[in-house]
Amino acid sequence: MARQNSSSAETLRERKQRRARDAIVGAAYALFAERGFDHVTVADIAERAEVGRATFFRYFGGKQEVVFDGDAQVDAEVVAAARRIPADGPIGGSLPAALAYLRSAVALLIERLTESPEEYRLHERLVAANPDLGARALAKQRRYVDTMTELLDERGAEPATASLAAEVALACFYAGRTAAGNDPDRLAKAVDDAFERVLGDRLGG
Amino acid sequence: MARQNSSSAETLRERKQRRARDAIVGAAYALFAERGFDHVTVADIAERAEVGRATFFRYFGGKQEVVFDGDAQVDAEVVAAARRIPADGPIGGSLPAALAYLRSAVALLIERLTESPEEYRLHERLVAANPDLGARALAKQRRYVDTMTELLDERGAEPATASLAAEVALACFYAGRTAAGNDPDRLAKAVDDAFERVLGDRLGG
Repeated sequence: MARQNSSSAETLRERKQRRARDAIVGAAYALFAERGFDHVTVADIAERAEVGRATFFRYFGGKQEVVFDGDAQVDAEVVAAARRIPADGPIGGSLPAALAYLRSAVALLIERLTESPEEYRLHERLVAANPDLGARALAKQRRYVDTMTELLDERGAEPATASLAAEVALACFYAGRTAAGNDPDRLAKAVDDAFERVLGDRLGG
Repeated sequence: MARQNSSSAETLRERKQRRARDAIVGAAYALFAERGFDHVTVADIAERAEVGRATFFRYFGGKQEVVFDGDAQVDAEVVAAARRIPADGPIGGSLPAALAYLRSAVALLIERLTESPEEYRLHERLVAANPDLGARALAKQRRYVDTMTELLDERGAEPATASLAAEVALACFYAGRTAAGNDPDRLAKAVDDAFERVLGDRLGG
């Protein structure tokens, strides 16, 4: 996924490192799109990125890792943004309140994930076509449940409420993704609709 | 997971095959419990089960497969039982009706999964401790969403309702599993409580 570095204090060395990483990620995505993930080697990626194999391995453990490049940074940014969402008061045992908060937090995540629609589409295609990448994506999505549970805990949600709301939020994400097909432009609305159906007119306050 | 063969028309050959499979599964589970999954080889399992390696590989592709032995049969039985749950009429676009049906279907699945509490506990411990097994379990749980969506489709649910209800049902399963810890005796109640909270007093009719 696309990364941005907004730090103005970036040193020359950091800038060079970031450029090398970005070149590797760009080359890898281009090659995956052209040939399919299975038919691209690390040597191919290094050659296209005009770096040595050693440089590749300084940044990535293998071609799988390139597909999930930047996830940790995106996740940290989204969590930080989610912490800034104004609270209506402590959530306690209210499932609707917990889901309303996560609805906003998931919207922030989706905004980031679909920032570059082309990269989103290719990422989703790669993950769908490759069982190892699929397994890694599933594991990552399960970790989102832990993150959402923690965020709710920070806002005073009871453990059982936090856990259930986090699971239901992931369910809304998946249902919305199914409804949107692989179209990043429809994802945000489709996921929000899923929250609306679970929460909106039925789960009143 | 435990399997039962209730067919009275089982031939001698089938009975011998089933006994060999059961011996392999029993030996494997005993060894996994004693030494941990990573420290058990196929040769160890074959030796304990008193079969040759060739016999092992006639039934299983590897030690991972033994952990998920019988899942296909359990799943088929649960789906057949779920089809027999009386319908209150076509589900259409009603999320509460779809969830009420899945609540019963998931209860049937849990009853089967926890039939042998010791095996359930060991299975869960193995899956939690081994990333490859964990990935396989996650993929299997995602396939439950497809199965639940199909069952709802057969009962006249609209596609978007079926998809969302199936996702929320899996969410209730996960939340209940978290609440129950690794205790099979608490799982059914904990999952049902999760459905109750999403559905019961809030999502009225």
